[in-house]
Amino acid sequence: MLTMEKPGIVLAPYGSLYPQALATYKQIRAAYEREFPGSRVQLAFTSRLMIKRLFENEGISIPGPLATLAELREMGYRSAVIQSLQIVPGKEFHELAKLVQALNGAGGKLGFEHLEIGLPLLSALEDCKRVSSVLPTVWKGDSLNGEGRDNPTDQEKEATLLVGHGTGHPADSLYSLMAQVLKRDHTNVFLGTLEGFPGQLELVAELKGMGPGTKKVRLLPFLLVAGGHAEKDIAGDDTASWKSNLIREGFKVETQLRGLGESHEIVSIFIEHTRIALEKVENRGQPLNRVRSKK
Amino acid sequence: MLTMEKPGIVLAPYGSLYPQALATYKQIRAAYEREFPGSRVQLAFTSRLMIKRLFENEGISIPGPLATLAELREMGYRSAVIQSLQIVPGKEFHELAKLVQALNGAGGKLGFEHLEIGLPLLSALEDCKRVSSVLPTVWKGDSLNGEGRDNPTDQEKEATLLVGHGTGHPADSLYSLMAQVLKRDHTNVFLGTLEGFPGQLELVAELKGMGPGTKKVRLLPFLLVAGGHAEKDIAGDDTASWKSNLIREGFKVETQLRGLGESHEIVSIFIEHTRIALEKVENRGQPLNRVRSKK
Amino acid sequence: MLTMEKPGIVLAPYGSLYPQALATYKQIRAAYEREFPGSRVQLAFTSRLMIKRLFENEGISIPGPLATLAELREMGYRSAVIQSLQIVPGKEFHELAKLVQALNGAGGKLGFEHLEIGLPLLSALEDCKRVSSVLPTVWKGDSLNGEGRDNPTDQEKEATLLVGHGTGHPADSLYSLMAQVLKRDHTNVFLGTLEGFPGQLELVAELKGMGPGTKKVRLLPFLLVAGGHAEKDIAGDDTASWKSNLIREGFKVETQLRGLGESHEIVSIFIEHTRIALEKVENRGQPLNRVRSKK
Amino acid sequence: MLTMEKPGIVLAPYGSLYPQALATYKQIRAAYEREFPGSRVQLAFTSRLMIKRLFENEGISIPGPLATLAELREMGYRSAVIQSLQIVPGKEFHELAKLVQALNGAGGKLGFEHLEIGLPLLSALEDCKRVSSVLPTVWKGDSLNGEGRDNPTDQEKEATLLVGHGTGHPADSLYSLMAQVLKRDHTNVFLGTLEGFPGQLELVAELKGMGPGTKKVRLLPFLLVAGGHAEKDIAGDDTASWKSNLIREGFKVETQLRGLGESHEIVSIFIEHTRIALEKVENRGQPLNRVRSKK
Repeated sequence: MLTMEKPGIVLAPYGSLYPQALATYKQIRAAYEREFPGSRVQLAFTSRLMIKRLFENEGISIPGPLATLAELREMGYRSAVIQSLQIVPGKEFHELAKLVQALNGAGGKLGFEHLEIGLPLLSALEDCKRVSSVLPTVWKGDSLNGEGRDNPTDQEKEATLLVGHGTGHPADSLYSLMAQVLKRDHTNVFLGTLEGFPGQLELVAELKGMGPGTKKVRLLPFLLVAGGHAEKDIAGDDTASWKSNLIREGFKVETQLRGLGESHEIVSIFIEHTRIALEKVENRGQPLNRVRSKK
Repeated sequence: MLTMEKPGIVLAPYGSLYPQALATYKQIRAAYEREFPGSRVQLAFTSRLMIKRLFENEGISIPGPLATLAELREMGYRSAVIQSLQIVPGKEFHELAKLVQALNGAGGKLGFEHLEIGLPLLSALEDCKRVSSVLPTVWKGDSLNGEGRDNPTDQEKEATLLVGHGTGHPADSLYSLMAQVLKRDHTNVFLGTLEGFPGQLELVAELKGMGPGTKKVRLLPFLLVAGGHAEKDIAGDDTASWKSNLIREGFKVETQLRGLGESHEIVSIFIEHTRIALEKVENRGQPLNRVRSKK
Repeated sequence: MLTMEKPGIVLAPYGSLYPQALATYKQIRAAYEREFPGSRVQLAFTSRLMIKRLFENEGISIPGPLATLAELREMGYRSAVIQSLQIVPGKEFHELAKLVQALNGAGGKLGFEHLEIGLPLLSALEDCKRVSSVLPTVWKGDSLNGEGRDNPTDQEKEATLLVGHGTGHPADSLYSLMAQVLKRDHTNVFLGTLEGFPGQLELVAELKGMGPGTKKVRLLPFLLVAGGHAEKDIAGDDTASWKSNLIREGFKVETQLRGLGESHEIVSIFIEHTRIALEKVENRGQPLNRVRSKK
Repeated sequence: MLTMEKPGIVLAPYGSLYPQALATYKQIRAAYEREFPGSRVQLAFTSRLMIKRLFENEGISIPGPLATLAELREMGYRSAVIQSLQIVPGKEFHELAKLVQALNGAGGKLGFEHLEIGLPLLSALEDCKRVSSVLPTVWKGDSLNGEGRDNPTDQEKEATLLVGHGTGHPADSLYSLMAQVLKRDHTNVFLGTLEGFPGQLELVAELKGMGPGTKKVRLLPFLLVAGGHAEKDIAGDDTASWKSNLIREGFKVETQLRGLGESHEIVSIFIEHTRIALEKVENRGQPLNRVRSKK
């Protein structure tokens, strides 16, 4: 019931039912709490379906973004940043942005004095470059064959294939940008998407284009969390999975189900985006000295 | 977690701490539940101060409008009507309207498909006429002197003085309109306001203008609930109250602390306004057959 | 093509075809130009019908508010005040306010950095009091019978009847507020409306309530300009006009077709409202030193 | 002054001073007029700088998008489509979208009943595929060496280098997507950008990566019009131009200054996007039978 000085922070991923994914969300939230001591950090799923299923299957109740923001408002927060935990600024991000923009019109009395949205992981070239530079550390040490790698792949005829979600939204093009940056920065590192471009067909063609000697593909999710998509669509034993398909094409496949969100370096990029959003909250014609504890 | 077919309904008064006021809110809500069976009806206070005090003093937790709407959204409601329980469309009403307008821009995915606001008690001449016609029944039978009245006042030299809240907002003028309609429809019925126009000075002058014979004034709140304003500012024993002042001016004062919201006829006017808002929800380019239970 | 330092000003009345009305608009614009030297002052009609007819009948082209604002934007203005020249904040005012609010969302690149709306003549009690205090000067000296009056009416049995437009909008209640203030401040001064409350019936009843001796009614428009409504509906010889009706009811009627906008004192109230809006433009997080001539 | 049945169409490129560019805009407008007979098609520059310079240098007055829309409104149009003539949905597109979204809140009385925006050339994978498939015809026949080509390049060691504008906006990634599609569909066709990614450095590296035999580069603008960027930054003799740089790197360079907008096939893609926007205007809860000529 106080008026809170600091903006609240809402972390908004799509959502998942998988224990490993939920653990990753928890870690990200903990990282935020360490990074922003004294700030309230809440988790909100953008997917109503995931909210529903998680509640029905596990009895765990995670609210949506509107309810989470409203809860912060009830606690006394007058401003907040909603941090998109999406990979690219596609449909989910734009829905969040629309909510934020709309609520900013509600006014400080019944709504918030100021809301801002934090950009997703890949929102511009700089992000792609930064992700490219930290990628080697994401799977380092955790690699299945136990060797310490400084690069996602260090053998001539081994390829690393990252698989992202992809989207019909124009933001799908950020996967192409990311792929080009990876190609420039690394050797034999490819990026494909489940639902966007380039897809499985294009990637198999690319891998084959490496030459006849290539035998091994490290198959890694380019997803925030290792949930359903990682376990089934990418690394599942189902005939339609990327793994099964690559095996049929003659590759030896090594999978490693680690979400990008399990890496401190990746989370740091999100935190940087949140920091920019928080600065916007603080600077936009909103004298912070008016926002003080009233109790 | 279902998708609800019917719009939710949020009743939004300013709020109060007084038991009689809380009981009136409860009655209004019950009337709405009878009138709209199958619809969820929630109460929300527009005053953050009242929410805070009620929680601190009584441990009763009533949320604000945004939190109440968000809760409906979580329950699966895709549309809602927020019914202003204000008397005139002043600041509180416009804050609610701004919230509704803003949230309508959030889109159906994370927000609502359609929100509408129900107008306050007095939003136009027709409302004033209707209130004027039902006023005699509001205090009938409950009058302190026990006589059955068909008119708020039926004695030559007795005046009925209604006291509303009043506001610095242009909507304060609706009290003047209401006063003129009362003057046209009744004898010796006056309307003044605590904070608007006409105020205590003007009303005392008007009562004196009735002639030297006037002795008795029935002093009644023109407020939704009989809360703090009714008990203190109007009928209190404090020297600054309207009662004390009228007594000092030589009038015999009879008070009756009944809120307008305790009258079925008055609540019916609000319900009528809600019905108009619900029709707007149903008709505005929003095919209801798309909104169905998914479970 | 410069970037203009000062906000542009758009005067937005409903519009009229009558030469006297057009002359009044011209005078108001001239008063604004004297009051705000160096500011661009433009006239815009809110009524598409009036724009159309004036162009067809007289070949005079007055644009609508959107076109006028867009023209200011092309001239290099980054901010503007649109001054409602309405009497009460009814439908026309709210349409203008909606346009201003909407355009404020367009951003400074293709739209404006800041738009504000100036309130109509009667937007609160203070306005009504001020209008009441200057009214005696509005018709002074111009009175048909040539006598110098200090009050709109100074004879015992003479009444002054002001006739405004009136509206179905809740803002119609401002006429009731104005009427109450006039009643408090003057003797035998009444205010009725063509389309709102109180109407002709109520006013005839009031005039008759003055007693059997009343013979003369000064009938004056409470309208910005003396256009069609003044010449026909109020003072016309048609049987349905207020004048004809009052004559039938036995009154001697004196009419004076002067719009409120012909009075410097009334225009000063609009100018005061514009000034408040200009201050909002200057103060709202919009560093004026960024807005400078680039040429 | 009529009420127009059909939506107006506003074509909104960035703008240019170059005669060839202005001629291209004129051709596009003519194509639209053939395609949408009976519809008003207007040209508007999004760049205030270009508007200013064109007026100062050539005395040609092209209005901005707001003024063009306002003009359509004055003509009686109640709805309109503003067609972005940008290549990717970057800053200019989003400014237009913001204007459209804002004006849609202004209401039909003083604003429009419905505005929509047409997407830029590359808004999704499908657009990139379509552009890729028509590209060979864009420069066919007009090629400097006069040979009829079915492909932008048909010689083993000849490369075609398209140069787009590029942007710091996330939409810059659409150039990467376009580049990937071109790579998949054609041989030795590359796409770089002046201000985005990949840039000159990356492209020179790519061209060199083709092998030692490559001698000739066809350098073509991937821009709507062949204006300043094409003539100076791409094909200019200045030492910083792409042409000069490629020559210094040992390539034989052939340039062809033809804007994408000079191609019927490319304009057809814009027209397709306009058609989709027009359908949205017609279908969104806006009964067209209400919108009829009133004269």
